[in-house]
Amino acid sequence: MADTDTLHAPADPAALSPEEARALFRAGLRVPTAGYAAGYAQANLIALPRDLAFDFLLFAQRNPKACPVLDVTEPGETSASIFAGDLRTDLPAYRVYRHGEPAGEFTDVRELWRPDLVAFLIGCSFTFETPMLQADIPVRHIEAGTNVAMFRTNRPCRPAGRLEGPMVVSMRPIPADQVADAVRITSRYPSVHGAPVHVGDPATLGIADLDRPDFGDPVEVLPGEVPVFWACGVTPQAAVMASKPEFAIGHAPGHMAITDARDSDYQVP
Amino acid sequence: MADTDTLHAPADPAALSPEEARALFRAGLRVPTAGYAAGYAQANLIALPRDLAFDFLLFAQRNPKACPVLDVTEPGETSASIFAGDLRTDLPAYRVYRHGEPAGEFTDVRELWRPDLVAFLIGCSFTFETPMLQADIPVRHIEAGTNVAMFRTNRPCRPAGRLEGPMVVSMRPIPADQVADAVRITSRYPSVHGAPVHVGDPATLGIADLDRPDFGDPVEVLPGEVPVFWACGVTPQAAVMASKPEFAIGHAPGHMAITDARDSDYQVP
Repeated sequence: MADTDTLHAPADPAALSPEEARALFRAGLRVPTAGYAAGYAQANLIALPRDLAFDFLLFAQRNPKACPVLDVTEPGETSASIFAGDLRTDLPAYRVYRHGEPAGEFTDVRELWRPDLVAFLIGCSFTFETPMLQADIPVRHIEAGTNVAMFRTNRPCRPAGRLEGPMVVSMRPIPADQVADAVRITSRYPSVHGAPVHVGDPATLGIADLDRPDFGDPVEVLPGEVPVFWACGVTPQAAVMASKPEFAIGHAPGHMAITDARDSDYQVP
Repeated sequence: MADTDTLHAPADPAALSPEEARALFRAGLRVPTAGYAAGYAQANLIALPRDLAFDFLLFAQRNPKACPVLDVTEPGETSASIFAGDLRTDLPAYRVYRHGEPAGEFTDVRELWRPDLVAFLIGCSFTFETPMLQADIPVRHIEAGTNVAMFRTNRPCRPAGRLEGPMVVSMRPIPADQVADAVRITSRYPSVHGAPVHVGDPATLGIADLDRPDFGDPVEVLPGEVPVFWACGVTPQAAVMASKPEFAIGHAPGHMAITDARDSDYQVP
């Protein structure tokens, strides 16, 4: 899906501070955030009515690879301890769901936000792309300037209360001789999805066609490369679509919350 | 506090399976569980009314060193995915709280359990004592056959909803030349409290006298040893005492749930 930019993307998005990036998004820039504000953790957003907050937090606890919780707001609050901006305006784009059905994409959800919403910030694999790049592991969607490719899988999450749904994964093509390095590096970031859940063979995940992602843009898998799959923080939105709660607001896949936390805050030895 | 045994402790508690250990406790054996069922993870218990479950899960998310959640039951359930036994009978001893006040210790809480209780199993540092022993790091309370020494600290947890309270720590005296090894080994088990929160100098944690623990038994710190402090899963009970919810059931400190999960399930690379 093409992004409609109302502002030009900055020449060097990696060099932006989280505050600068959020200001651009607040002003209307609508782009996927991979490669933005290098060194700062990015996060998935899912905001749900207070009544569902326990079910969701339990869903996250039971599915920690897909739903690592970085922060949770008090009901109605619009910033978080790791996100000093405004959660209603400072992401590049949002998706709203009513009874599980997509009800539009927005760049500002101030008029839709409700005082009973609890917002969850979920770790995002964009966070470990900086250390991958530093280790000379190519990240194709950053090279191509597109959104990461994401797929619904045939792997059900462990349900919790009223929430259930399939695991969603992101895919990066990795040169075969660098797959082990990619595993080693990403396993040091368990709070942002950690090690891959699957290496090669999309069919066993129920993915029929790598050229047709369920979210984001397709990327080419070159000869000598292996598709590597990481659990993805769009999983909560797949659960919303499957479980049909009355109302939810998520980020538009790939259009993340850029937090004030450092990548290194989520690194284990 | 002396434990009143109605059964003799087994000759080789480390060799018991989780099922065998739970059967002994169900039959009335009332002992601290350090050293039992080597290789299996132990867990702290806190059961709270459903109405408080979100606040507690958020408290745990905000205080992950002290409250690493291993498992959560559905309301009213009495077993868990990592605990095939009966949570009301298969721990050696329980503490019941009413409005934050201790309301007795029991070896069986079947008559007190309520259908609205949600039980949380929280990681326990007994889990990493096996790898410590395998690395020839002494564990004094196992050598002495006593309960581990636990202390309330002056460090407040991050509150969540109606829950607040101080961090509780367990203390082990470690020979000075093995402190680094103890840090290295325990840091590989983040789900069972991980690396120490404090090494040496109890006064800065607000601990006036190592000979007077708030929970468990005192242990001697020998010349050449340093007191090392790990976050402790009794922290939820300190939060219950500080926050005074209407009803709660915990384990008696040191008298843990022996789970079916392996220590190694919680080890990171």
